[in-house]
Amino acid sequence: MTKQPSFLYNNPDVLRHTIHDAGTRTLQCGVTLPEVRLAYQTYGTLNADASNAVLVCHALTGDQYLLGTHPLTGKEGWWHTMIGPKKAIDTDRFFVICSNVLGGCAGSTGPLSLNPATGKEYGIDFPTVTMRDMVQMQYDLIRGLGIQQLAAIIGPSMGGMQALQWGSTYPHAARHIILLATSHRHSAQNIAFHEIGRQAIMADPDWHGGRYRDFGVIPRRGLAVARMTGHVTYMSEQTLQRRFGRSLQDRTQLSYGFDADFQVESYLRYQGSTFVDRFDANSYLYMTRATDYFDLAFDHGGVLAKAFSGQTRYHVISLSSDWLFPTAGMRQIVKALNASGHAVSFVEIQTHRGHDAFLLNEPDVMQTLSSCFGTV
Amino acid sequence: MTKQPSFLYNNPDVLRHTIHDAGTRTLQCGVTLPEVRLAYQTYGTLNADASNAVLVCHALTGDQYLLGTHPLTGKEGWWHTMIGPKKAIDTDRFFVICSNVLGGCAGSTGPLSLNPATGKEYGIDFPTVTMRDMVQMQYDLIRGLGIQQLAAIIGPSMGGMQALQWGSTYPHAARHIILLATSHRHSAQNIAFHEIGRQAIMADPDWHGGRYRDFGVIPRRGLAVARMTGHVTYMSEQTLQRRFGRSLQDRTQLSYGFDADFQVESYLRYQGSTFVDRFDANSYLYMTRATDYFDLAFDHGGVLAKAFSGQTRYHVISLSSDWLFPTAGMRQIVKALNASGHAVSFVEIQTHRGHDAFLLNEPDVMQTLSSCFGTV
Repeated sequence: MTKQPSFLYNNPDVLRHTIHDAGTRTLQCGVTLPEVRLAYQTYGTLNADASNAVLVCHALTGDQYLLGTHPLTGKEGWWHTMIGPKKAIDTDRFFVICSNVLGGCAGSTGPLSLNPATGKEYGIDFPTVTMRDMVQMQYDLIRGLGIQQLAAIIGPSMGGMQALQWGSTYPHAARHIILLATSHRHSAQNIAFHEIGRQAIMADPDWHGGRYRDFGVIPRRGLAVARMTGHVTYMSEQTLQRRFGRSLQDRTQLSYGFDADFQVESYLRYQGSTFVDRFDANSYLYMTRATDYFDLAFDHGGVLAKAFSGQTRYHVISLSSDWLFPTAGMRQIVKALNASGHAVSFVEIQTHRGHDAFLLNEPDVMQTLSSCFGTV
Repeated sequence: MTKQPSFLYNNPDVLRHTIHDAGTRTLQCGVTLPEVRLAYQTYGTLNADASNAVLVCHALTGDQYLLGTHPLTGKEGWWHTMIGPKKAIDTDRFFVICSNVLGGCAGSTGPLSLNPATGKEYGIDFPTVTMRDMVQMQYDLIRGLGIQQLAAIIGPSMGGMQALQWGSTYPHAARHIILLATSHRHSAQNIAFHEIGRQAIMADPDWHGGRYRDFGVIPRRGLAVARMTGHVTYMSEQTLQRRFGRSLQDRTQLSYGFDADFQVESYLRYQGSTFVDRFDANSYLYMTRATDYFDLAFDHGGVLAKAFSGQTRYHVISLSSDWLFPTAGMRQIVKALNASGHAVSFVEIQTHRGHDAFLLNEPDVMQTLSSCFGTV
């Protein structure tokens, strides 16, 4: 038995999480979950008529800590570049809300939560969650905060899937929906890369059929390989080439062995090894499954345009070098929104930084979001 | 202890391999290997003046069995579509040779070979091999067969790297060199995907630090994940979408679990699971390392044109949807060959089938190779 790993949720600092109690909920898979809780953070001040609220939906491995020092990792929140006083999403104007998704591992109900029926963590017995489930819990949170209509919902990547689901399920819930580097459904290649990650986790004997918490271990090696795989898809070929190329790591010549000779190898190993300390392996399985399952066209007889009604204004933003969610796929969303009579703007941001550009200090992303929120 | 796995090399049918003894050889890494052997096959008949010999160099996980029934797997040889009587590489005209590369696992000296110094298999103690090492052994084989000059050398993928190395190291060894879906050096993204595969193998506890043969096991799960990762890079996004899309496997609705719901998941799992019975995990490490290390420009002061001399005619063929070795990279080879004064033809074959198109029954590939060999 090795030392019990410390996860966000199990850390004493969990007490710092703000919790919304969503009660007993039946999920899309048919399972009823008791005592569903969402951990969330807010930034800025809700105005008197509760009309300035912006919901931010986080990506696959994100959480509710958008800015400021993350209470557990000590790093800055994942969207501090974009949100804050006088920033693209201006917290002097807006009341910004972000909650950890259902099935996540940063305080919301998920595989690391205690099952009230057994007193033990759910682990792999946690039910499969969908984008619709995640959004239903968020809806409950928003209503709980006394907000009838959001000024805007914005989401990058998996967050954009949630924003799309919001637009479909609750067509009057937001005046604006901003979709960034996302898709209305995963391609076969997207599913393939996620499946590689899942197989890497489940192949690790320390996964123990999903019951690794009982054994005091985590499937560290498998989760690291899964993260490495994901990470390569978040970066463009050009960025990898510009940033690393074939440069060697801490050496002037090849080692003729299996060390990390190349900088890109060293970088990926580092990305994998640090991820395992901040993210739960089962939660990674559930998050990747939720994104693979998401198919807003299928849910509407194969016609995406039928997913949308209401008067919401949409803003669709793609990243030119994003090969995970290419511009062509986002154009399909624009077409469907046009076909369903919605006001929709579309921008393709020119960047060589791939999918991850939404996280980075990329001026064009900031300016584009700033323009969007200028109309909100 | 589970049953000792049966590899090609250890199978009694190994006796069917034709072996060339290359003697004691010092490799690029500085290590001297005794008793180096190459397993090879030939097809067609060598003519009286030994002027009709064509060397085929195989790809990462290929072997010397080009056509006919593979003696061990029972399947057809990997390039039966392209080689045979009246085919693109016509065995009525040409004497075709293919040898398993040094470091491989189909009969040539590699990690599965016995180290004469210890009487045990080399395993992970096998020295790192390079493209130059592989080609030097092939040169010895060709000379051993009494051939002074090859009519042509052809190689797809890693085979193309060997063909490039041949052109550089032995500029008068062939009248024609045909490069198909290859590169003169791996990009950072290529290295990244290989590193994911290596980390998956080495993360498997059954790898046992590379000494799994001592434990009677193979790192089955890690090697399967490595193969899945490789396989996704061999297929284009479009092929995955056309062939699988989001179709479900043997079911009409989602399972809400972690089974292979999608056909693409089932397909990849199958590719992974069948690979482990035909390929040695350590050999996979050595092959991926050799391709990552290959950099013909670096070897010539960063100027690829300096790699080439002599009068060889080059034929460069790229595949439009190959994102592993894109056309842009192959154009760099063409430019370098032009700059060094070589006769060179260039064709980009339009196909949606990605890198793997060279293996498939793709009429344009056959016609292009047929045209090439019409000039040989």
